[in-house]
Amino acid sequence: MNISGIVLAAGQGKRMKSKLYKVLHPVCGKPMVGHVVQALERIQAGRTVVVVGHGADKVKAYLGDRAQYAMQEQQLGTGHAVLQAEALLGEEDGLTVVLYGDTPLITSDSLLAMIKLHQDKGAAATVMTAIMEDPSGLGRIIRDEAGRVSRIVEQKDCNEQEREVKEINSGMYCFTNRKLFKALNQVTNHNAQGEYYLTDVLGIMVGEQEVVEAYCTPDAMETLGVNDKVALSDAERLMRARINRSHMLNGVTLMDPLNTYIEADVQIGADTVVLPGSIIKGQTVIGEDCVIGPLADITDSQVADGVQVKYAVLSEAVVGNQTAIGPFAYLRPGAKLGSNVKIGDFVEIKNATLGDDVKVSHLSYIGDARVGNNVNFGCGAITVNYDGFNKQLTEIGEDAFIGSNVNLVAPVKIGRGAYVVAGSTITNDVEPDGMAIARERQVNKPEYASKLRSKFSEKKQQSQPKK
Amino acid sequence: MNISGIVLAAGQGKRMKSKLYKVLHPVCGKPMVGHVVQALERIQAGRTVVVVGHGADKVKAYLGDRAQYAMQEQQLGTGHAVLQAEALLGEEDGLTVVLYGDTPLITSDSLLAMIKLHQDKGAAATVMTAIMEDPSGLGRIIRDEAGRVSRIVEQKDCNEQEREVKEINSGMYCFTNRKLFKALNQVTNHNAQGEYYLTDVLGIMVGEQEVVEAYCTPDAMETLGVNDKVALSDAERLMRARINRSHMLNGVTLMDPLNTYIEADVQIGADTVVLPGSIIKGQTVIGEDCVIGPLADITDSQVADGVQVKYAVLSEAVVGNQTAIGPFAYLRPGAKLGSNVKIGDFVEIKNATLGDDVKVSHLSYIGDARVGNNVNFGCGAITVNYDGFNKQLTEIGEDAFIGSNVNLVAPVKIGRGAYVVAGSTITNDVEPDGMAIARERQVNKPEYASKLRSKFSEKKQQSQPKK
Amino acid sequence: MNISGIVLAAGQGKRMKSKLYKVLHPVCGKPMVGHVVQALERIQAGRTVVVVGHGADKVKAYLGDRAQYAMQEQQLGTGHAVLQAEALLGEEDGLTVVLYGDTPLITSDSLLAMIKLHQDKGAAATVMTAIMEDPSGLGRIIRDEAGRVSRIVEQKDCNEQEREVKEINSGMYCFTNRKLFKALNQVTNHNAQGEYYLTDVLGIMVGEQEVVEAYCTPDAMETLGVNDKVALSDAERLMRARINRSHMLNGVTLMDPLNTYIEADVQIGADTVVLPGSIIKGQTVIGEDCVIGPLADITDSQVADGVQVKYAVLSEAVVGNQTAIGPFAYLRPGAKLGSNVKIGDFVEIKNATLGDDVKVSHLSYIGDARVGNNVNFGCGAITVNYDGFNKQLTEIGEDAFIGSNVNLVAPVKIGRGAYVVAGSTITNDVEPDGMAIARERQVNKPEYASKLRSKFSEKKQQSQPKK
Repeated sequence: MNISGIVLAAGQGKRMKSKLYKVLHPVCGKPMVGHVVQALERIQAGRTVVVVGHGADKVKAYLGDRAQYAMQEQQLGTGHAVLQAEALLGEEDGLTVVLYGDTPLITSDSLLAMIKLHQDKGAAATVMTAIMEDPSGLGRIIRDEAGRVSRIVEQKDCNEQEREVKEINSGMYCFTNRKLFKALNQVTNHNAQGEYYLTDVLGIMVGEQEVVEAYCTPDAMETLGVNDKVALSDAERLMRARINRSHMLNGVTLMDPLNTYIEADVQIGADTVVLPGSIIKGQTVIGEDCVIGPLADITDSQVADGVQVKYAVLSEAVVGNQTAIGPFAYLRPGAKLGSNVKIGDFVEIKNATLGDDVKVSHLSYIGDARVGNNVNFGCGAITVNYDGFNKQLTEIGEDAFIGSNVNLVAPVKIGRGAYVVAGSTITNDVEPDGMAIARERQVNKPEYASKLRSKFSEKKQQSQPKK
Repeated sequence: MNISGIVLAAGQGKRMKSKLYKVLHPVCGKPMVGHVVQALERIQAGRTVVVVGHGADKVKAYLGDRAQYAMQEQQLGTGHAVLQAEALLGEEDGLTVVLYGDTPLITSDSLLAMIKLHQDKGAAATVMTAIMEDPSGLGRIIRDEAGRVSRIVEQKDCNEQEREVKEINSGMYCFTNRKLFKALNQVTNHNAQGEYYLTDVLGIMVGEQEVVEAYCTPDAMETLGVNDKVALSDAERLMRARINRSHMLNGVTLMDPLNTYIEADVQIGADTVVLPGSIIKGQTVIGEDCVIGPLADITDSQVADGVQVKYAVLSEAVVGNQTAIGPFAYLRPGAKLGSNVKIGDFVEIKNATLGDDVKVSHLSYIGDARVGNNVNFGCGAITVNYDGFNKQLTEIGEDAFIGSNVNLVAPVKIGRGAYVVAGSTITNDVEPDGMAIARERQVNKPEYASKLRSKFSEKKQQSQPKK
Repeated sequence: MNISGIVLAAGQGKRMKSKLYKVLHPVCGKPMVGHVVQALERIQAGRTVVVVGHGADKVKAYLGDRAQYAMQEQQLGTGHAVLQAEALLGEEDGLTVVLYGDTPLITSDSLLAMIKLHQDKGAAATVMTAIMEDPSGLGRIIRDEAGRVSRIVEQKDCNEQEREVKEINSGMYCFTNRKLFKALNQVTNHNAQGEYYLTDVLGIMVGEQEVVEAYCTPDAMETLGVNDKVALSDAERLMRARINRSHMLNGVTLMDPLNTYIEADVQIGADTVVLPGSIIKGQTVIGEDCVIGPLADITDSQVADGVQVKYAVLSEAVVGNQTAIGPFAYLRPGAKLGSNVKIGDFVEIKNATLGDDVKVSHLSYIGDARVGNNVNFGCGAITVNYDGFNKQLTEIGEDAFIGSNVNLVAPVKIGRGAYVVAGSTITNDVEPDGMAIARERQVNKPEYASKLRSKFSEKKQQSQPKK
């Protein structure tokens, strides 16, 4: 079966009050139109035509060759919009699914069910409908006694009885393609708004004794159209719930799915627990038996099995088995941690490879470095990787011990098993098993503290403190 | 039209189980009674009388001259409470709106609609009502065939039919002022509780052929009274939803409004995105095109356009355009950042002015300082601004480079373009374009690391480790 | 009254997709079966028998002697499961309550109400029922005209009328013990599944003219059975709401109970405010008038009155009155803080006792230390407590001043009132009132910065930057 898709995406979306083109607003990390086109890809639509308006360049830049594009210069109604696709699709056989770029929750399952009904019934058009507790404002589906669609009545044209109907028109359709364009060319704009309505196609088809069906989707939320940022947050919440539910059914434990934000493409292994406030994005893959969160913010990272990440931000990082990160740690792009590594509190790792069993427990920065297995960094130890111009490399051999508050001024090599004494600034290489020290001897001045205090206190009295 | 307001705020609120006077409990950062008085201010009430009980001083201290005060020494009922305002308001012409200090969700829109109905109908009293799915426990509004209020029946006095009524008495009213006090003086306490009920005024008025109307507010939640901390959290949630909805309709993107906390007076520009866990308080103003959060905690700060703030706490800070803050940063009062500044991870800025393009990337503290444009602070660089007595100033000229783990002991001046070498403690001024160094030379001791290890290992064996 | 309990916990829970035994999945920090056994303990059940299957060891390890155990080798139905308890309970007089290990929300109040009905009615069996808006899939309770239970009909056997019944079988029962086992021995597996159903006991009893009653619990959620991780998150949410409601009614202010995570055994004083994102676990006790959060993560800690904890993680810590912690602080096991202590940003305290009025304002690590009253730590001051082998002690007398970026290399003692100058690495003891300094003098090299820049810039041009 040859299936084409038309996605109407020319609306300006003034109520979004945004400089961003409406259908490019993201929902769970993906532009709305991306979700819609993905639903078409999942039903193997051969060609997808996105109907775009002014500012279309950004849509094209985002979707690229996943779609073809038809320009609707003026916004003359939904029928007019679909008609712009005629040049590209008019000669196709088979079916055409018409969707909107601002209904990101539509699923391929619903599209397949609509298509199946369309085919089973030999329909020329099948409209997707939904049952709404509060249908006010929406077009009502009026069915005949056989259950077929006889009309769609807009809210303002409803009589008392029609207003009670809770089955509404989602605006999404499956058409037999050639019949769509045949009818579409008969649609006029002889109405109050002077617009060409896609809905009119159904009346024309009914008039020609074509079969018009309605597929009522069990989940009305799939038809949610986003016209302002309140609806955008609704779509985000519903999409998030769908993603989270899927992970839970796969064996991932989400302590509070309402407070867990996982983008659509993330993979998580079974028996991993995700704690509240966590945000997992992009192409992140997380293994089994991890504890992620509270407040793990992970983007485009690879996390192995048995890893703990709490109150930490990871971006383009790679983390080995059984490694523990946080609280309050920051792994930036290029951080590659081995197994059983400990990254403690107030630690940043950037563009650095750390071997197995490395410990960076507190208040450290390791940037532009290669660190062997089993190296221990004391509190406050840092790599001085930048001289204002160059980012330079620090290399540390396995089993080395880097004392507290040590500065390793790159480029520098610390040999295997070397020991760098606390408080040293190291500018020269240290040989394997060597010790390095670079600090002044301590001098004690007895009874001098009270003299200092007198001096400082006097100074305070003389000046207005700048606290 | 002369409008007066009476706010009943004398209740002790025992169920709050709190030392704080009941109506002073905050909702979205503002005491409940503050919301109620604000609603009266918005309808241009000429005089507002707050009826207070024991512990009233704190209410007066908070509201000040936004209101006048009547003391209700004993809690003898709502009618008695309103009567305490007679000395202040009894001679006024016009209308009087009676509200409760513990209904923070009431809006000026609803008050105006109630007043309009009151005037249109020539009423002596108009009660605000609401439709409740579950009205149990609340007084029911019994209307006559013309739709006018004939009686209000308390739950315990309801017959079968009355119990089915879902329109309830909110306890809020609009009265023609002189008729209110005339009727109020006829109210007795001849009832089971021995209290003077405000509700009885309506019966007295109906008996005198006065018109008594009911205005049914479309949002029942506006009438929510807070009697315990469960209800307080409900009010907080509903107020938060109202604030958040307003920002979204203005073009602010809230990824998860349920997990976003914005106080009532905050301003945010369009196309700014607020990510989960963010808390924005006080008189904060945020520009356009910012990304705020995740977990931005911002109080009384000015944030310009295009700013990013993630996992950071800002208090009384000023932030220039395109500046990026966090993750894990803390801007304290007096932090003033120019444009295109980078404040990275584990950085605190306090009482310091930073020019444009300054970079403080990690593990630094800049306090009591003036920093020129384009200064770079290495990792761990800090200002030593406190000697135990005095907070002293550090001044750094533009284009200076402050190396990693440098201590700048204030008062000290680093000249324009100066270079301070990593690991130095600087106590004297550095001239423009000068270099400063204050660190010991490195000494390497070959093969000494294994000796150290033997020594430490031996020590460990001798002692019980104090881990 | 002799009450026994039987908890059915042999199910494998394949839909949990977990290596963890089903009933051991935690809800609000406690395994599900722990909640169920606790409900039995609260009604003073004399003996509790937990029926376990393969993998039972972990259940036994968790519950220990709070229960006795019966092994159900094969899963032959609920009747068969209960029968496994006969050897332990068959000779008991009195009542037996049969529960499931995966219904963590059941309360002792509901069990007591069921038992009371059972006794008042002289019943042989009383089934706990609930009203479900959507009862599909669940067994329906069919009552006779007197309101007694005549049958329980499974969904698939329901006629049209029965399908409309909204009262469902929770599967939980109170039985007169001897009558239970008498009937249970008559149950057969002559049905489609070939299983022994506990439900059949009711039919047998009715056939023998025994009284069978139903207790309909007002909170249907108490009967929620957890079969997958979606239901597990539902149970967690409901249990959390119950815990949070209880704290609010006790006078604790929860700004957003939906975003506040408090485990069952935590105690919190009145007028303490808990802000969003906070997680309070284990045996934590928090005093009155505290502000906890945003984002306080507190486990097994003692927090006194008037304490502030924001954006901080506390584990096995003790915190004195009026102490302030955070933002971005980490108290690890053994941190003991006096009154009026300030722990600021990017500070870690581990196994250290701090006296009253101590200030550790920023970027510090205090580990393995005893610190007297009124000591001030400058920014970046740390204890060097680990040499790679030994964790050693730092002792600091009261009123001492530890300058910024000072390293205190343990073991070391800083005397009372001593003053350690910024940037020093201290390896020897400092006497009381003494001053200690250990840093190199500063050397300024005029006009050298531009030379350095030329050098670095040249280097950059020569090499590919490793940024």
